[in-house]
Amino acid sequence: MPRYKLTVEYDGGPYVGWQRQDTGPTIQAALEDVIQAFSGERVTVEGAGRTDAGVHATGQVAHVDLATDRFTAPKVMGAVNALLKPQPIAVRDAEIVSERFHARFSAVERAYRYVIMNRLAPLAIGRGRAWHVSAPLDTNAMAMAGARLIGHHDFTTFRASHCQSKSAIKTLDQLSVERDGERILVLARARSFLHHQVRNIVGTLKLVGEGKWTPDDVTTALEARDRSAGGPTAPAEGLYLTGVRYDAG
Amino acid sequence: MPRYKLTVEYDGGPYVGWQRQDTGPTIQAALEDVIQAFSGERVTVEGAGRTDAGVHATGQVAHVDLATDRFTAPKVMGAVNALLKPQPIAVRDAEIVSERFHARFSAVERAYRYVIMNRLAPLAIGRGRAWHVSAPLDTNAMAMAGARLIGHHDFTTFRASHCQSKSAIKTLDQLSVERDGERILVLARARSFLHHQVRNIVGTLKLVGEGKWTPDDVTTALEARDRSAGGPTAPAEGLYLTGVRYDAG
Repeated sequence: MPRYKLTVEYDGGPYVGWQRQDTGPTIQAALEDVIQAFSGERVTVEGAGRTDAGVHATGQVAHVDLATDRFTAPKVMGAVNALLKPQPIAVRDAEIVSERFHARFSAVERAYRYVIMNRLAPLAIGRGRAWHVSAPLDTNAMAMAGARLIGHHDFTTFRASHCQSKSAIKTLDQLSVERDGERILVLARARSFLHHQVRNIVGTLKLVGEGKWTPDDVTTALEARDRSAGGPTAPAEGLYLTGVRYDAG
Repeated sequence: MPRYKLTVEYDGGPYVGWQRQDTGPTIQAALEDVIQAFSGERVTVEGAGRTDAGVHATGQVAHVDLATDRFTAPKVMGAVNALLKPQPIAVRDAEIVSERFHARFSAVERAYRYVIMNRLAPLAIGRGRAWHVSAPLDTNAMAMAGARLIGHHDFTTFRASHCQSKSAIKTLDQLSVERDGERILVLARARSFLHHQVRNIVGTLKLVGEGKWTPDDVTTALEARDRSAGGPTAPAEGLYLTGVRYDAG
């Protein structure tokens, strides 16, 4: 009964999200279906992060168990990738792990990247892969405001109303804002995130970048512990789950 | 009779190339059609580089003349971009230039980037935007081999058989190879290039990266002045026209 850890990349655009559901194609269902196709086993693929419709991943992590032990990890990776074509999902890495490993519950840190393309012209090559913001954004102000959110806080202001997490208290280990030409990257790391937390933070930081809010306004919004005190939700197409970290062993 | 200089980005995937032709959609025709739609004038858009089917651009430069002077450069950019949607073409910049400016004949340097994704896993997010090479490539060897091509040479070995250039003698000002994780960038700059020159060079450098050829083999191939002595043509989807330089004035 080997357990496989899979590192998965996908373009979230064509999917209604990671998690299997009846409303449309999902990454989880695509993986489960192709694993069944080559192994003959009906499996459940557990992901570290249940990314929303349209959200991308370069480093989602999932695990899956097979009853047979006749497939090496490279075989699983090759078979899954061959059968996934032409879907924009690829297994970047596969390894056999202990049955104590759980992609979701063993994760000690998740990392997200949010990409804003800040320029007047619409996106041609990067369309669907970034949030296009045409008003010039002050990334220094955004970085200062983002720093106010680092640490242990009640993030109710940045939590989707339908979020199912038991507590809104989370520890944000990184929230940085960098500019690389017309590209602005917002990098966030935490043990876990609330639903829409990164997108709600980015939507709020954009108000700061435009000069409509000050960093102090972000602190005030955080302290209000009220979703309606925060900025709007940034679109899914700019968000990437870039990695999941596990403790050794 | 204002002349507009346009800087254009496009995903070359859906197009049979820059240049208007009967066999399918082209970037030139898309631009000419939308300019006619808002100005009422039948125009010719002249590009600096006639990129092939599937080749992308982040910094193509073109010029176009209008009979009327009632459109400012920002108006032209805005109208073209609004009408181009949802095509993956965008005007990044527009300015009114002298009638002595010619996008193609005034260009003193063209810059291309070729992107190789060097990893075992197929591409999901970067599909159609890079050449996927799964065998590990030695970028140091590729860089050494590329350096052999810099300078003033007869590039017949790297020239498409149907190339219409009068002479195969060109001066290559830059040919560098850099690795950034799984991404390999080949950067090339010259006053002008032969048809398929960058792709034929990249296809040859890949042989060096795989260890099938040495840098000396590349010198021998160059000196053979024979297309059949060179490596294969790298696919179009990895190539980007990134910029065109003009002398001031």
